[in-house]
Amino acid sequence: MILVDGMPAGAVRATDRGLAYGDGVFRTLPLAEGRSRHWRRHHAKLAADCAALGLACPPESLLLDELRLACADATGEQVAKIIVTRGDGPRGYAYAQDAVPTRIVSASPRVAYPADYAERGVRVMKCRLTLGDQPALAGIKHLNRLENVLARAEWNDPSIAEGLLCDAGGRVIGGTMTNVFIATGGELATPALTRCGVAGVTRERVLDGARSAGVPCAVRDIGWGEVLSADEVILTNSLAGAWPVREIGERAFEAGPLARSIQRWLSSDDEETA
Amino acid sequence: MILVDGMPAGAVRATDRGLAYGDGVFRTLPLAEGRSRHWRRHHAKLAADCAALGLACPPESLLLDELRLACADATGEQVAKIIVTRGDGPRGYAYAQDAVPTRIVSASPRVAYPADYAERGVRVMKCRLTLGDQPALAGIKHLNRLENVLARAEWNDPSIAEGLLCDAGGRVIGGTMTNVFIATGGELATPALTRCGVAGVTRERVLDGARSAGVPCAVRDIGWGEVLSADEVILTNSLAGAWPVREIGERAFEAGPLARSIQRWLSSDDEETA
Repeated sequence: MILVDGMPAGAVRATDRGLAYGDGVFRTLPLAEGRSRHWRRHHAKLAADCAALGLACPPESLLLDELRLACADATGEQVAKIIVTRGDGPRGYAYAQDAVPTRIVSASPRVAYPADYAERGVRVMKCRLTLGDQPALAGIKHLNRLENVLARAEWNDPSIAEGLLCDAGGRVIGGTMTNVFIATGGELATPALTRCGVAGVTRERVLDGARSAGVPCAVRDIGWGEVLSADEVILTNSLAGAWPVREIGERAFEAGPLARSIQRWLSSDDEETA
Repeated sequence: MILVDGMPAGAVRATDRGLAYGDGVFRTLPLAEGRSRHWRRHHAKLAADCAALGLACPPESLLLDELRLACADATGEQVAKIIVTRGDGPRGYAYAQDAVPTRIVSASPRVAYPADYAERGVRVMKCRLTLGDQPALAGIKHLNRLENVLARAEWNDPSIAEGLLCDAGGRVIGGTMTNVFIATGGELATPALTRCGVAGVTRERVLDGARSAGVPCAVRDIGWGEVLSADEVILTNSLAGAWPVREIGERAFEAGPLARSIQRWLSSDDEETA
């Protein structure tokens, strides 16, 4: 079901700034029985992303009510999507300080990825598109996602699960829909997302897991060469959990001990569900 | 009136990829009695932008019919907006090759800018935000416009008509909603838009006007220093026509002969209207 500003609607005004300019942010998260295992992190990230764009974030209790309502008639696991836009507005880039955000809360059945992806690992490719630097938007899960769309259109081989993207300087940033970690000599590293990329909630959970486990995990620039020479490469997002990479082009990898550690951290860091 | 896929609707599906990812393109153009003076250029640019994103561009005759319908009940000059998105789709960046685009055609009354803007010129500021380089999207009037939104939010002084943007290398690219020309020693120049920026139809008309008039107009990288030391700075778009700049921060300019030439070219390059 899709709720727009709390009403089962399925449609938004054609003059919404989310459509006109991609002026908004979003979240994608798994729900079980209408509840999110990591809601607090998702809401905190939504609030931070809204704040970065000067958007008023909808109250947490309202979103929780709407998430439950959106999957009230559903059976089985669901994927929720929350979009918050700047709301309706006249033509022109300027927005009113009192603009009323539009919120879109939807749920749809969760289609499980092949179990193989988490167990044996995934094949990935390096995308030709390079991500543009924009520090003012880096890390934010905003609605300007044409780079992701163009990158994802670079392959249609269903045996390739993800494409990895670098910036123009040849530093790896992440996948089209995942964050990336590399493991080298027992230590982890993940790209600093200060110029581009999306800083996901699962990335944050892995960073916390590494901290708790006493595994060093650097957040820094990582050149493409380091990816190819790493012992392990691991992709993460809220729906995938953690996928070991088993192939990037010619280079084969094994699903190694740090992929398994990350998977263990992610399966055991339950918060009180909301 | 707003037509969505030809129907007076005012709303689009909440699952439209234009909203989800900014996966689409748009045009803004003035209409007089339901007709556009430069329709051929606008349609050609719309078609080129669609092609750049792998979108099917709606047929010209359909759009013309819908433009007339959108302002059928209106009196006075109108501003039309055409949005073409990738259409409805499931979650995920991948799109189907046979995705059916959504087209949104709307018209609203044209609010004239102060006559002073074209006569005496406008005050502009330099925005702090720098535009990110993305050659794959440069020049295209796509729906990923958060940079423009953030830049426009840098001022609310109504006496400032526009903000100018540079790239991270300090090269001027254009205004939040305009293209820019500089005049130096009787010659014109406008930024090359190969890494960022939007290549507008009016910019193209000025380039053609300069060619016809035998005025040199280079399309090249232009440093910010060159803007401040230029004899004239001129801003253009489809609704504004050409505005001389009379002030950028501390630097004052006069509306000079090349601003007047550009205005003359733009007032006399009528195509057969469509």
